[in-house]
Amino acid sequence: MRDTRAMPTPKHPLDAATHLEPLAADLYRGHTSANYANMVGPFGGVIAATLLNATLQHPGRQGDPIALTVNYAGPLADGGYTVEASPVRTNRSTQHWLLVMKQEEQIAATASAVLASRRETWSALEARFPDVPAAHELPVEPSLERAPWTRSYEMRFVDGAVRLSSPARQRGDSRTTLWIRDAPPRPLDFASLVAICDAFFPRLFVRRPVWAPIGTVSFTTYFHADAALLAANGDAPVLGVARAQQFRNGYFDQTAEVWSEKAALLATSHQIVYYKE
Amino acid sequence: MRDTRAMPTPKHPLDAATHLEPLAADLYRGHTSANYANMVGPFGGVIAATLLNATLQHPGRQGDPIALTVNYAGPLADGGYTVEASPVRTNRSTQHWLLVMKQEEQIAATASAVLASRRETWSALEARFPDVPAAHELPVEPSLERAPWTRSYEMRFVDGAVRLSSPARQRGDSRTTLWIRDAPPRPLDFASLVAICDAFFPRLFVRRPVWAPIGTVSFTTYFHADAALLAANGDAPVLGVARAQQFRNGYFDQTAEVWSEKAALLATSHQIVYYKE
Repeated sequence: MRDTRAMPTPKHPLDAATHLEPLAADLYRGHTSANYANMVGPFGGVIAATLLNATLQHPGRQGDPIALTVNYAGPLADGGYTVEASPVRTNRSTQHWLLVMKQEEQIAATASAVLASRRETWSALEARFPDVPAAHELPVEPSLERAPWTRSYEMRFVDGAVRLSSPARQRGDSRTTLWIRDAPPRPLDFASLVAICDAFFPRLFVRRPVWAPIGTVSFTTYFHADAALLAANGDAPVLGVARAQQFRNGYFDQTAEVWSEKAALLATSHQIVYYKE
Repeated sequence: MRDTRAMPTPKHPLDAATHLEPLAADLYRGHTSANYANMVGPFGGVIAATLLNATLQHPGRQGDPIALTVNYAGPLADGGYTVEASPVRTNRSTQHWLLVMKQEEQIAATASAVLASRRETWSALEARFPDVPAAHELPVEPSLERAPWTRSYEMRFVDGAVRLSSPARQRGDSRTTLWIRDAPPRPLDFASLVAICDAFFPRLFVRRPVWAPIGTVSFTTYFHADAALLAANGDAPVLGVARAQQFRNGYFDQTAEVWSEKAALLATSHQIVYYKE
């Protein structure tokens, strides 16, 4: 008789990297992953996805994500960490969360999340899906050796790739448009979407193509997509558009949109980034 | 002999509305103000300004604001409230804060703030100051009876004023451009700037001019201006530009810029807003 038990599905590297083990009520333990390592500590997008996951796997969860803000308070070393996830107020249709990520009693990141139960209403899209070639018409960008997490994404740039050269070769703007998906492919969900919202290279390097120390200080994502719209995306690439509005005295902002292939606006995302120069 | 002691300066209504009295370490008491009342509870911008003030008047404060995120968790009734302000991590140049506003042991709002010490670096403005008439060339918008806080601002609309009529009279977009300043005039500072960032009428009412219940769920402001740039503004009006990117199934976003008369980008700001329909 043939053994018909399903083989256990190997975990996608993103699920392994954002995995949280319950330790106590409202408390989880996680571990950094080499697949999502950045120059110093993990890629910020995977930290955001992990914090969001703490609300999504919490037994008290009500609803799906509407907003997530992560403040990166200090570096996270390779190794273990804890996440405390507290549902601080649950209303009829919204639930507010505070989250704290610690490593050796030091706060590495704090976050807030809003979950909500949505229902169908009058809706209107105001942002415009850009005129771009299909993903398959564009070459895959090679990953960056100094940012190992880039191997975990398949990126195809429409414009605004980073080409470090000289501070004299400034571009007139910092806009990037690219197709992006997880590598290996993985069906899109809230965690992978928020990580993708942070997967744009620093706007500073697009505008002024010379390396400098940078670090995101605060990162916010608004989820326009609900679970059904994400499920409909499957593992197709999504289109990301990012630009800065200002670089000034050590901080620049980034504002971004993430679209499905079918021109649905899945998320809008914003961050403010420290730079040294 | 003439008494040469200065007369006490009467407090500006915004300073009265955002006043916090220290109760204990990291704990303050405040009170809502009729001057900044909204339809239900206070104008959200004054809640944000009050939470920011808790960091600014804290004895452990280091630096000036870079980012503030406020999550409005539940309604605040007219009356007293407490604000707990905890500096959770202080680095060499940045300081991270968590803030909790409570009324009768219920959490009404949570917030995070990042302060930083800035220094001069290579800088570049990428957003564009729009082509607009000067403030004095435009009429002052009458205040709205059902939103008493609008009496505390002098607003002059370039375009995108709210004119409630019928759901059939939809506009093609939700963009608003207006000159705005405190009424009575008050020199611009971080607290008044963040309140102004929330002083745009709901994008829903611009796009689809029919009244509906709405409420900001999460609100983020990035401060591009430092204290010197704010001081240079004095009490001159600032130019606000706001638009939505999407209205979808109960939530819409708003993205905004606030500029000085001299075309300096002072702040960029984002929010996600619940709407019922």
